[in-house]
Amino acid sequence: MPPSAPQADRRLEDLPRDECLKRLAEQQVGRIAFTREDKIEIRPMSYRMLQGTVVLRTAYGTALDGLDGQDVVFEIDEADDRTGTGWSVIVHGTLEETWRPDELREIRTLGLFSWAPSPRDRILRIWPERITGRQIVT
Amino acid sequence: MPPSAPQADRRLEDLPRDECLKRLAEQQVGRIAFTREDKIEIRPMSYRMLQGTVVLRTAYGTALDGLDGQDVVFEIDEADDRTGTGWSVIVHGTLEETWRPDELREIRTLGLFSWAPSPRDRILRIWPERITGRQIVT
Repeated sequence: MPPSAPQADRRLEDLPRDECLKRLAEQQVGRIAFTREDKIEIRPMSYRMLQGTVVLRTAYGTALDGLDGQDVVFEIDEADDRTGTGWSVIVHGTLEETWRPDELREIRTLGLFSWAPSPRDRILRIWPERITGRQIVT
Repeated sequence: MPPSAPQADRRLEDLPRDECLKRLAEQQVGRIAFTREDKIEIRPMSYRMLQGTVVLRTAYGTALDGLDGQDVVFEIDEADDRTGTGWSVIVHGTLEETWRPDELREIRTLGLFSWAPSPRDRILRIWPERITGRQIVT
């Protein structure tokens, strides 16, 4: 079924920063994109926001190994292809592994789970450098 | 609310290739990740499958400009953070702009729309080199 609004009536509009942060706080699943040995990878992940950072939980021995300190991109969206509506929020930032016991204690209360469980989980945080959002307006 | 299945009962399982293709045919919105001037970008996009390729429609003058021939990654997923279930399919491939009139005619029948409309649209296809999928099993 083609979208209900004709293509020409549709345009992209920037979301204000506070609206981006609101939507980041409301959602719980996004995708992280990163490069690894010059190859692009993308992985869906559960996340929670904490003090303005994106908190991720994963296992050791995954594609996310060895990314500490690297630039990554994190994305959330909602889209309905049938109606041709949608929005996305994109976070550019630096990935950092979290070791501090007080941070880990707080993060454990967030109800975050790992898509790739293991006996020993690792906690990663994305420190945003740039947060942008856009939505389709019809 | 924490996921209903305890973390330890959850594991990732590979999806067979035919199941990946089936899910690619069923969905209509995914995300493309690419590098541009050494920076990673990610964009949600509507898509359709055609002859085993991922077909995208966009405008001129977007982040996708000048990516003809580059390696990109395309991802679709569905996830429910509440129940801790989810799956994803990831396509690694080469992006190619489509110019051939017969191809464009066929693609026009797919009901594909652009998130970034413009007077003159461009049609991009991802030719898959590798298709993988995983799902959380509880």
